[in-house]
Amino acid sequence: MPAHFADRLMAAIKEKDSRVCVGIDPVPERMPDVLLPPDGKWTEHAISEAFNEFCSRIIRAVADHAAVVKFNSAFFEALSPLGVGLLDSLVSTADKLGIVTILDAKRSDIGSTAAAYARAVFGHYPADQGAVPDAVTVNPYLGSDGVMPFLAEADELGAGIFVLVKTSNPSSSEMQDLDAGGWPVYRHVAELVRQWGEQRVGESGWSSVGAVAGATWPRQLTELRQAMPHTPLLVPGYGAQGGGAKDVMAAFDEEGLGAIVNSSRGIIYASARDPYADRFGPDQWDRAAAAAAEDMRKSLNAAIKGR
Amino acid sequence: MPAHFADRLMAAIKEKDSRVCVGIDPVPERMPDVLLPPDGKWTEHAISEAFNEFCSRIIRAVADHAAVVKFNSAFFEALSPLGVGLLDSLVSTADKLGIVTILDAKRSDIGSTAAAYARAVFGHYPADQGAVPDAVTVNPYLGSDGVMPFLAEADELGAGIFVLVKTSNPSSSEMQDLDAGGWPVYRHVAELVRQWGEQRVGESGWSSVGAVAGATWPRQLTELRQAMPHTPLLVPGYGAQGGGAKDVMAAFDEEGLGAIVNSSRGIIYASARDPYADRFGPDQWDRAAAAAAEDMRKSLNAAIKGR
Repeated sequence: MPAHFADRLMAAIKEKDSRVCVGIDPVPERMPDVLLPPDGKWTEHAISEAFNEFCSRIIRAVADHAAVVKFNSAFFEALSPLGVGLLDSLVSTADKLGIVTILDAKRSDIGSTAAAYARAVFGHYPADQGAVPDAVTVNPYLGSDGVMPFLAEADELGAGIFVLVKTSNPSSSEMQDLDAGGWPVYRHVAELVRQWGEQRVGESGWSSVGAVAGATWPRQLTELRQAMPHTPLLVPGYGAQGGGAKDVMAAFDEEGLGAIVNSSRGIIYASARDPYADRFGPDQWDRAAAAAAEDMRKSLNAAIKGR
Repeated sequence: MPAHFADRLMAAIKEKDSRVCVGIDPVPERMPDVLLPPDGKWTEHAISEAFNEFCSRIIRAVADHAAVVKFNSAFFEALSPLGVGLLDSLVSTADKLGIVTILDAKRSDIGSTAAAYARAVFGHYPADQGAVPDAVTVNPYLGSDGVMPFLAEADELGAGIFVLVKTSNPSSSEMQDLDAGGWPVYRHVAELVRQWGEQRVGESGWSSVGAVAGATWPRQLTELRQAMPHTPLLVPGYGAQGGGAKDVMAAFDEEGLGAIVNSSRGIIYASARDPYADRFGPDQWDRAAAAAAEDMRKSLNAAIKGR
């Protein structure tokens, strides 16, 4: 595996011909019936066991269809401390299958605290033997002081970061779109991201400093792709949040590289919705997820070829 | 105890006549010799035991001198999953002593993910029996979508949040000071904080929606105190980061209420520095912390009286 995060990411995209990132967002309420505890009681252990079975099977099933799996830290922290151990184990599972992993934790702090977060993300005390995520998402509100400690740790491990630039939610405009000297705030953040990434470009031509830009803002995706030509984009908001394949085309370069598109609920809970509910039983959630990921892969690839 | 966060906070400040918040930021490298593992090996369990002894004794020792204890989530996450369990237990310890607790986690996400973070902070699955923090710090970069889910959970529990407005670090200016239509970005955030807090003012006259504003920016503290007259301020950056008692006076209202000032390393590692190192041995870190917290309490109160 290449030692540089972006090189690993682009190699995975090319090898699988897939720009799909599957978001792992488990909640007890949506576990398939077969995983419900026999006595109906959602104890911490019951949830942990259900999450483990649910997520492990999905990760194995989507391994051929998705370049990346993104773990949403919140859903594991809600089950902490058991959830935190489970997250470690699922990262290892994905890693062994050759899937690039992102921990979506959106961390933000400064100095020694940010360094402690980076340590929490990229291997706990004292020295973890297990796999660590290939990248982590970071919030830019605190400026460089909040980003550099993550980069210091990431650089050492050949890992990456994705900085929130323009998020997919409606109220992202409240702050991110404020006009500051002719540029919206997110454009200023993009310029910082470009600078932080400049010295971190791998052999693939892409930087280990990525950016998050929502599928729900196609015009801004175009602007951000141009503003940060070497920055891999993580594009959330596809599917359940309303973005479609055409909306995200601007995220890709001329070769169809440089971005991954995330879908979480649309894939992992595919067995509960049409057309997958027709084809798969509720206990075949993993096969339904694989089919949904494969459909998304093809749909993105077709849109790229059709440009 | 009052059911409204800000009422509890103001009651604690008045009862102890203290505006001191002690930040709990444990790192293995700074544990006293007496807590080092006998074989010299910092295993996860050894760190957890040392942190437990170190932090528990400090919390008990400062209970009469500090209104608030702030747990810095990063340092416990770095030790996860053991650290997460330890954090729960220390929150309970503080709670039993009548100390108001803040979890400094600086979380940011939207929708169901933010709700999962709120659940992680204010009681894990299925229904936690232990104490939960009185408030949590939240990052505003995602706008209202990122804040409302925390408020929904906090409202139900009578808990609070502190939104990052103007952070204490030098590079906070990169984003927070961008001029947007005559107001810096942080001032726009302050206006959102004021609005979010408007309907959440308790009997004390203070809102359960607080703000973080650094001691390192005295001029902005003045501006923010005026812009958010019902917003409790959490003021970091005192002591180790350079802010002094005079720098934070603008955070308080005419009665000397409405703000708490945080010091972390300056208190919990007081036994390693003068004048405390002279008076206390390295195994009396708790007594040194109590003395440092008491000195800070007096120094803040004297500055308030001397205005």
